[in-house]
Amino acid sequence: MSNRHTFSAFDEDLEQIRLSVLSMGGHVEEAILRAARALETRDADLAGDVVQGDKIIDAAEEEINAQVVRLLALRQPQADDLRAVVAVMKMAGELERLGDYAKNMAKRVPVLAAGVVIDGAAGALKRQARLVSQMLKDMLDAFSRLDVDLAHDVIARDAEVDDMTNALFREFITHMMEDPRNITPCLHYVFIAKNIERMGDLVTHGAEHVIFVAEGARPGERAKGLSTSTITAQQVQQQ
Amino acid sequence: MSNRHTFSAFDEDLEQIRLSVLSMGGHVEEAILRAARALETRDADLAGDVVQGDKIIDAAEEEINAQVVRLLALRQPQADDLRAVVAVMKMAGELERLGDYAKNMAKRVPVLAAGVVIDGAAGALKRQARLVSQMLKDMLDAFSRLDVDLAHDVIARDAEVDDMTNALFREFITHMMEDPRNITPCLHYVFIAKNIERMGDLVTHGAEHVIFVAEGARPGERAKGLSTSTITAQQVQQQ
Repeated sequence: MSNRHTFSAFDEDLEQIRLSVLSMGGHVEEAILRAARALETRDADLAGDVVQGDKIIDAAEEEINAQVVRLLALRQPQADDLRAVVAVMKMAGELERLGDYAKNMAKRVPVLAAGVVIDGAAGALKRQARLVSQMLKDMLDAFSRLDVDLAHDVIARDAEVDDMTNALFREFITHMMEDPRNITPCLHYVFIAKNIERMGDLVTHGAEHVIFVAEGARPGERAKGLSTSTITAQQVQQQ
Repeated sequence: MSNRHTFSAFDEDLEQIRLSVLSMGGHVEEAILRAARALETRDADLAGDVVQGDKIIDAAEEEINAQVVRLLALRQPQADDLRAVVAVMKMAGELERLGDYAKNMAKRVPVLAAGVVIDGAAGALKRQARLVSQMLKDMLDAFSRLDVDLAHDVIARDAEVDDMTNALFREFITHMMEDPRNITPCLHYVFIAKNIERMGDLVTHGAEHVIFVAEGARPGERAKGLSTSTITAQQVQQQ
């Protein structure tokens, strides 16, 4: 932490930005859970709230970027400090994308609510979404106190999300094959499951930033579950 | 362009980074076209090359980020210059995600090559991918000479990609309904079409960065085609 010519001012500014990121993360966490609940209860109004609420998340990212640019211009941080600032900006970018996925999930609710019920689908997706939102919560905790162990724990849990996604894909494909009327709703469910899987990837990236800031190096290649890019090949072979 | 205490050194450094971004963009453009060709010719080897090649794209982003951090630390740019630097870093991030989508397309090739042929699917996706890679090429041109008109033109063309995606969705759903054996390949094709649509969105974001850097403000809300989040609702109603 050398080269710092305005020590406390920089620390205070960065702390303000970190608090903004944590607050933004809280909004995203809530958006994911609310989108999943709207899906399960077929609540188009709640889904509409989530879609509208994404504007707050987008605005939060813009504000954080502006804060970062002001900080860079004013404090001219170097070395570790600069790395911490860049990581915070990347974190905000990833939270914004997580918010987009939650919005996308919510957008599909009205269509799904108007169509046939696929037994167990919304409930299973809600469990998958809960897993990811818990990962997000823990990643934000790890970020707020630079807890490397917790960040590693979050990364490890992503394989569970991937496995759950693959199980869901198999289930949805079976439903599609059983009855052509299931195809359209299941297509939406498949996209939602894939989006939740991607949320897990983004949270994992966030946890990697935490480790990068704390230790100055990225973690090694993380363990990945089976990819859904190839899962349906097995499905084909099983039919 | 005030507050600049090392005028030519900053300009030279930024120009170097811009060239790195353009070179990275060229790799991404090629990856998209090669992935689409692999899909059409059912060439698993070519697809494997695209998947491997994504590492070069990822490494290029890391290198650009490192260049940016060095530039920030060394030249401490202010105001417009700082905004240009941040935009360049965001551009590299978007190119990296474009590369991921191309890789994802390529990953699906072996599965699709081993399965039933869906008439016209790969050819239509190749046309969609070509449209996006041309948008990317023009966006990079607009970026290299800060051509705002060309950037606006790129943004306008994204609606065409969205419309094409929706037409493809309808087609794939019809194939799925006709024969359950089409479900698995069509699911992959649907994901590919969606990924190409997202590539169009990312290129559009890139064009918005160009306008932001050139004019200091983001363009207004852009015209969007119909979203695939709702398209299949109509499809349901038509059946």
